[in-house]
Amino acid sequence: MKAAILHAPGRVSADEVPDPAIHLPTDAIVRVTASCICGSDLWPYRGQRAHSGRIGHEFIGVVEDVGSSVAAVRTGDVVIAPFMFSCGNCPNCRAGWTTSCLFGGDYGGPDRDGYLVDGGQGEFVRVPLADGTLVTARVPEDDERIAALLTLSDVMGTGHHAAVSAGVREGGTVVVVGDGAVGLCAVLASVRLGADRIIVLSTHRDRAQVALTFGATDVVAARGDEAVVAVSELTGGSGADCACECVGVTASWDTALRVVRPGGTVGFVGVPNGVPGGLPVRVLFDGNIGVRGGMAPTRRYLPELLDDVLEGVLDPSPIFTTSIPLTQIAEGYAAMDNRTEIKVLVRP
Amino acid sequence: MKAAILHAPGRVSADEVPDPAIHLPTDAIVRVTASCICGSDLWPYRGQRAHSGRIGHEFIGVVEDVGSSVAAVRTGDVVIAPFMFSCGNCPNCRAGWTTSCLFGGDYGGPDRDGYLVDGGQGEFVRVPLADGTLVTARVPEDDERIAALLTLSDVMGTGHHAAVSAGVREGGTVVVVGDGAVGLCAVLASVRLGADRIIVLSTHRDRAQVALTFGATDVVAARGDEAVVAVSELTGGSGADCACECVGVTASWDTALRVVRPGGTVGFVGVPNGVPGGLPVRVLFDGNIGVRGGMAPTRRYLPELLDDVLEGVLDPSPIFTTSIPLTQIAEGYAAMDNRTEIKVLVRP
Repeated sequence: MKAAILHAPGRVSADEVPDPAIHLPTDAIVRVTASCICGSDLWPYRGQRAHSGRIGHEFIGVVEDVGSSVAAVRTGDVVIAPFMFSCGNCPNCRAGWTTSCLFGGDYGGPDRDGYLVDGGQGEFVRVPLADGTLVTARVPEDDERIAALLTLSDVMGTGHHAAVSAGVREGGTVVVVGDGAVGLCAVLASVRLGADRIIVLSTHRDRAQVALTFGATDVVAARGDEAVVAVSELTGGSGADCACECVGVTASWDTALRVVRPGGTVGFVGVPNGVPGGLPVRVLFDGNIGVRGGMAPTRRYLPELLDDVLEGVLDPSPIFTTSIPLTQIAEGYAAMDNRTEIKVLVRP
Repeated sequence: MKAAILHAPGRVSADEVPDPAIHLPTDAIVRVTASCICGSDLWPYRGQRAHSGRIGHEFIGVVEDVGSSVAAVRTGDVVIAPFMFSCGNCPNCRAGWTTSCLFGGDYGGPDRDGYLVDGGQGEFVRVPLADGTLVTARVPEDDERIAALLTLSDVMGTGHHAAVSAGVREGGTVVVVGDGAVGLCAVLASVRLGADRIIVLSTHRDRAQVALTFGATDVVAARGDEAVVAVSELTGGSGADCACECVGVTASWDTALRVVRPGGTVGFVGVPNGVPGGLPVRVLFDGNIGVRGGMAPTRRYLPELLDDVLEGVLDPSPIFTTSIPLTQIAEGYAAMDNRTEIKVLVRP
């Protein structure tokens, strides 16, 4: 089969690799029908995090084969794969923290038994712990909502986690810091959770437009001090109830901590690749600012978000601004890296 | 009158100072009947924070005089003063964040009009914004519960804030990091909030004994790695639901973040005087560890905790291991500094 390989920073291609096979009775083989490129894939692509080899962790596809103990999915099922695999039965999974599964792991590297787990950007993936991991999409493989359903693998679940962690509530005011695909999904999630006022910080006109389409009530086309002043004015001087930090660098954290009112909360999902100074405890202390978030347990959120997509009340698919074949994966990464596209869908 | 003066690090005495007078119509003059020394008073005493002059911010007393607009308290009332004064009417006060009052401030320095606000360790205190600040204790001034009621000024409200911020719940497991007066009050608060398992880290036998009396179920006489391993064993390997961080230095934070399970919460009230590296975002991210806390809004908590003290179901008074007259204030500071006493009550 063909699969994306990150050879070195800036160098990715779709190469011929061995077809996956069932290694463990809990495995499933999924034929990928759609995958995509994540903002976090750009860290190793840019050389900011060490990783090479198979890549990609968001995909939807059709079950081609299952191990002898798999019971929850069957050959032919269209399934959504959360961005990490998880058992569903350990104490952490049972408590809903599936990204802290005691037996789970990442796509694109070895599992705990040492067998390679394929990356999501490829034609097929061996999915470990299939019963705990995969969620049947209840649609045919050529359904027109496939792009929307694919977002439940990571980006929409992650935006939802930002909003849930921030404590977005009916009637509340939230500031979304970050206008990438995750930030835009945090807007959708905030609408869904009933926020009255959704202020998105965006200096990119195309992304701001998507945010408004998704239900943002205000766009602040500024960063840093200027953004903090603008949010203060928009909230009558009091600050927002909460903020969604969807970037993960010191500057965005600084902004998020400053736009919330005393007692407010910052929900965060930006992969912290650039906060070397840590979080300023004194700022949290003085303003009673709460901080909560992390790796989104998208497996936990998948059923409720899936219901909403299938009922037609949730459609994150506009975050995909282009679709490419797997053979053009290099162009896809370049477009995400240059910010000429918000998010790239990949068809094997 | 006499009041405590911190002349320089390590040098405190009760000196003659001018009697306070009403300056503003919202002022009250309180004759202090009992005050105490706070762990946070030790920072300037040790030269770890810049402050000199009047000191002390926890007191109970009798209203001697009120300004023309004061309506909620009257001359002769026995009142409890929260450790900061607050208006009760600004958006932050109305939202319950009285320590972020837009018009409030600290004892021992000038108010926003430039008039000195006396320190709590003295014979009299001019209390600004008396209506928003003071809470009537509904007992005579010689009531035997005065010591218990005095704790509602700061230390018990602060321990309660740690537990509330940590999300201590009916049936949950909490680790209390810090066996000072605040940590011990966090134990009481956790009992009150229904925790099933309260593990306190204490290497001081006398403090551990108070913790057990207050309802701690387990004492771990260790710190750092050893404490983390012990908590893991006590919780069947899964970690605690939450932790109360009642110290405020890097080592205690590190422990608090490591004893909670994925998705757990650290409630913190330790004044962050020694966390120069900031909080490690990656640790929060990987484990979905929430962090919430800060300057306790004790004014908000006072009515409910007062009810419990008056009903006889809450008695934090054992944290006071000695009582001294104001003239011996230097000995009181030395005893707290040497940890020969847990907390020192001061009688003017």
